[in-house]
Amino acid sequence: MTSARICTIGDEILIGQITDTNSRVIAKALQKAGVRVESMVSIGDTKEAIASAIDSGLKKNSVVIVTGGLGPTKDDVTKSVIYDLSQSRKYVTDSRQLDIIHKILSSRGLDVLEINLRQASVPENCDVIPNRLGTAPVMVVRFPEEKYGHKAVLYSLPGVPFEAEGALDDVISDIRSSFSLSDIRHRTVMTYGIAESALARRIAAWEDSLPSCVRLAYLPDPVKGVALRLSVYGPTGGNSGPEEMLDSLTASLKEILGDAVYADREQTLQEVIGDILRNSGKTVSTAESCTGGMIASLLTSVPGASEYYLGSVVSYSNSVKENVLGVPHDVIAGFGAVSPECVAAMAKGVRRLTGSDFSVATSGIAGPGGGSEEKPAGLVWVGVSSVNTVETMSFVFGNDRIRNIERFSASALDSLRKFITRQLK
Amino acid sequence: MTSARICTIGDEILIGQITDTNSRVIAKALQKAGVRVESMVSIGDTKEAIASAIDSGLKKNSVVIVTGGLGPTKDDVTKSVIYDLSQSRKYVTDSRQLDIIHKILSSRGLDVLEINLRQASVPENCDVIPNRLGTAPVMVVRFPEEKYGHKAVLYSLPGVPFEAEGALDDVISDIRSSFSLSDIRHRTVMTYGIAESALARRIAAWEDSLPSCVRLAYLPDPVKGVALRLSVYGPTGGNSGPEEMLDSLTASLKEILGDAVYADREQTLQEVIGDILRNSGKTVSTAESCTGGMIASLLTSVPGASEYYLGSVVSYSNSVKENVLGVPHDVIAGFGAVSPECVAAMAKGVRRLTGSDFSVATSGIAGPGGGSEEKPAGLVWVGVSSVNTVETMSFVFGNDRIRNIERFSASALDSLRKFITRQLK
Repeated sequence: MTSARICTIGDEILIGQITDTNSRVIAKALQKAGVRVESMVSIGDTKEAIASAIDSGLKKNSVVIVTGGLGPTKDDVTKSVIYDLSQSRKYVTDSRQLDIIHKILSSRGLDVLEINLRQASVPENCDVIPNRLGTAPVMVVRFPEEKYGHKAVLYSLPGVPFEAEGALDDVISDIRSSFSLSDIRHRTVMTYGIAESALARRIAAWEDSLPSCVRLAYLPDPVKGVALRLSVYGPTGGNSGPEEMLDSLTASLKEILGDAVYADREQTLQEVIGDILRNSGKTVSTAESCTGGMIASLLTSVPGASEYYLGSVVSYSNSVKENVLGVPHDVIAGFGAVSPECVAAMAKGVRRLTGSDFSVATSGIAGPGGGSEEKPAGLVWVGVSSVNTVETMSFVFGNDRIRNIERFSASALDSLRKFITRQLK
Repeated sequence: MTSARICTIGDEILIGQITDTNSRVIAKALQKAGVRVESMVSIGDTKEAIASAIDSGLKKNSVVIVTGGLGPTKDDVTKSVIYDLSQSRKYVTDSRQLDIIHKILSSRGLDVLEINLRQASVPENCDVIPNRLGTAPVMVVRFPEEKYGHKAVLYSLPGVPFEAEGALDDVISDIRSSFSLSDIRHRTVMTYGIAESALARRIAAWEDSLPSCVRLAYLPDPVKGVALRLSVYGPTGGNSGPEEMLDSLTASLKEILGDAVYADREQTLQEVIGDILRNSGKTVSTAESCTGGMIASLLTSVPGASEYYLGSVVSYSNSVKENVLGVPHDVIAGFGAVSPECVAAMAKGVRRLTGSDFSVATSGIAGPGGGSEEKPAGLVWVGVSSVNTVETMSFVFGNDRIRNIERFSASALDSLRKFITRQLK
């Protein structure tokens, strides 16, 4: 099996200032393509450390992927290491990357400086995969087989996470065409509302009966829920092909888990809600207290959200709840802002204000601390409404503010998804 | 300078299932104690890989810290690697850890199984630091100096993040008493609004004149701007100590960069705005179109934001801009929703609606695509207002929706910060 090392470069990782997220994203993509990740290494911005991590990586593996150390400033030295490793004798300018640099800078109204142009200059013995999202291109070094006793390819990616992720498809294609990778098919089933351990128990019998060519991975995420990834390795050994096998396994999973399954491919709750609303020609609005705009932010992260999303009132203060959303003063005085009565009034209020078909409202205690024994930090009330119906529900999580805001928002989106689905039936 | 390698063990890291957070926590603690982290390595659950990562780590460094691979199940093999490396000939039971295991299991109402007791059994040539939060103790192997040509110590920590973190103080104490540690001091200066390459040019002369004991790192982030991290290694060689040196370098940086510097420690724009508002007893509200709630979400991510943040209207549709925020129909019809006139009216509208002292409003084209030659995707108008004043400004970025929303939001927060600062003078 083709194997790889991932190297991330940057003193900021080694002093603990940032968490290295590139490694995980790259590992996921390699894994999906059928490449085994043998090791991940993070090292500082010195030539010796980078060269040694690459060299020892290629001794053991066919592929080394490096990220970082490609910025225009002096603390970035990866390119000069690649110059040496590829035994280049000069730098050459990649015209495709040069075009991109000009476009990016002019679209931002910035002058093109010599320091920017230098980013398009690469060691002559490199292949280049242009980076459409940033100025530093991907450099590819293909070593002669005698160097490591096996085919060995080095990929150098930018360190900025969205640029590294953006270049990854092209890198994986290049790896595919350079090495003969075994065939793996994946299917991801998205679930929300059942914790990982409870999920494992619910599907234990189903999991035990999986054919030997199938592997299952649990991929939990605070906002997306638990994704179940099914992978079929190589031939199925039966009458049905891998896609039929995945269809039938997905169908049986849905039967066990019911409406906890919200998609049978990699989708987010906000994308699923967007699809339902677009297809039915309906609109939605949001009223948020404790989630502070995150539900709006998630809904509007989907391109084309303006077709079905009208807007939100983030009623962080009680005066905004009363004066803008029209929550009766008595409701807040009598039941408190964190109550089913309040979120029901908020949901109705924002629907009336915006004229949307549906709405969702949240009020809770994000913490850390605050709250009472009856209403602890981590409690959220969610209200959903349509023209005829209002429903409310509550969820309880922990004491971590950021994590709570994420979970509150995701629970509200999931409640909205289930509500809209029922209402449109 | 004493240096270290951090090794994390687990197949779940290599397939991208989980992000390794232990490395960062350990790196921060080592860095603070004056230990330079030379590398971080993540490897799978095999004896060969673990032994090789430890051995190559100790060749280059005085300290190797390993986490993971200590669970009671058979895929955890770290202990047997340590048995071999320490040339032990038998396992011995650590009575302190045995007590803890009994206490933990009985407090959870669980029977003590043989598999649990085995956790207190360690290779004879190890020192033990008890793990009060879990069953697997920290094992310490002190190698004879002739083995690596220098003092070399291996620490094996549990992989569960809160257990690893809980044991870290004791591990750092042990490192302190085993090695004489040199001193490193850091200072992070936060900047916004100047791209990394332009920043490098602006401070080139200043950077060139840095004393040899000082290192500078550029840490760009789409929402936080570019952080400049100054590190003073060891003695300064002059009359002033490291903190005085950092004070004076920070002051000269501020002089060069002016109000592009928003903090002289690790802070976010929303935290700085929160501090200014809390200290002045003022309040703010937001009106968001293209940013779709992200500004609200950033402001409310700060604990205690309810003291100064009243709320937001996310006016994604024009009808909400007109009906809720009171933007005159003529403004949108005449100038368009993406215009200085519209964001000025939105800013005034939300301030009136919520009664806040200040407000900020955004309207732009997040893309991808859409827009026109005159108003391309990536363009955002920002309006800021106080009781007496309204100002508007525009920024142009690229064509990536998520990235644009982040940059629009950060630019709006930075504009708000500068506006409030000027108004309160």
